[in-house]
Amino acid sequence: MAHITARVEYGIHCLLWLVDPASGQPSSRDLAELQGISPSFLAKIFPRLEKAGIVQAADGIRGGYRLAKPPSEITVLEIVDAIEGHKPLFECQEIRGRCAVFDNEPPDWATTGVCGIHAVMLRAEKAMRESLAQETLASIAAVVERKAPNSFPVEVQGWLVERVNGRTSSRSRKLPNGP
Amino acid sequence: MAHITARVEYGIHCLLWLVDPASGQPSSRDLAELQGISPSFLAKIFPRLEKAGIVQAADGIRGGYRLAKPPSEITVLEIVDAIEGHKPLFECQEIRGRCAVFDNEPPDWATTGVCGIHAVMLRAEKAMRESLAQETLASIAAVVERKAPNSFPVEVQGWLVERVNGRTSSRSRKLPNGP
Repeated sequence: MAHITARVEYGIHCLLWLVDPASGQPSSRDLAELQGISPSFLAKIFPRLEKAGIVQAADGIRGGYRLAKPPSEITVLEIVDAIEGHKPLFECQEIRGRCAVFDNEPPDWATTGVCGIHAVMLRAEKAMRESLAQETLASIAAVVERKAPNSFPVEVQGWLVERVNGRTSSRSRKLPNGP
Repeated sequence: MAHITARVEYGIHCLLWLVDPASGQPSSRDLAELQGISPSFLAKIFPRLEKAGIVQAADGIRGGYRLAKPPSEITVLEIVDAIEGHKPLFECQEIRGRCAVFDNEPPDWATTGVCGIHAVMLRAEKAMRESLAQETLASIAAVVERKAPNSFPVEVQGWLVERVNGRTSSRSRKLPNGP
């Protein structure tokens, strides 16, 4: 499994659909079906995004999710951390203290401070995180917007609004979807 | 498992012992026992370092490993790639083409070029790799050297030379260790 998993990919794709408020407040099931991905997989991601203050859930039959702040203030790093939690690039096994010449009693100089190899990995992790912190949901949305024809967001909004309205129509006999 | 695994940690620790030519040409078993780590685990790492031109193996009863080039020319990125192979930070599932409004026939604009989310992850990976490419075996060795007392490398060299000589002594009835 890659370090940044499909959970993050799915999460960002979903958040992109929430950038335009005209999409209403789709549920995680609506977003799963819009994208042809597993609803149960997505249902585990949204509570994490909500807990991190990235989305807000609205209760009720028309309930769903909306962004909790402007997309220009939501960094990719924030989304990755919300979904993946603390996940270091490298986990130091601290083998430096096991050197045979120490005879099971490593001196302080050998185990104090961060291991030189670990320090290298922490710098690489910092570089990766700084890169992710420079990217926002708004900057990705702008890339997608440049590629897509004008009709595309309209079609998607139509699809989503129809889904949300479908949940409230009298023809619907199913239980409402939670967020 | 972390993205950069214990294989890399063990590999770099071993290579550090080879920086000083006075350590002789220890086998991977010598290096495993010096560091209190699994010899069979290490035996899988050294052939990768050799294939990548980072170490050279010498055959024969006194055979073992030495660095194939100066430690200032061996980058951490090179070691990571040699040991881990191609291992992307993120594997794009290309869900962008599955959008329900495409009705199973995604238009070219939706699937051409790199996905905007994938591009963000590739930039983060590039930042991480550039950081690892700036670090060399020599720079890590210098950090260790600053911390350790002068007696330490002498003790380690003594331990390693004794091991290598042990393999060639008439008292040794065991088969010689391969590199």
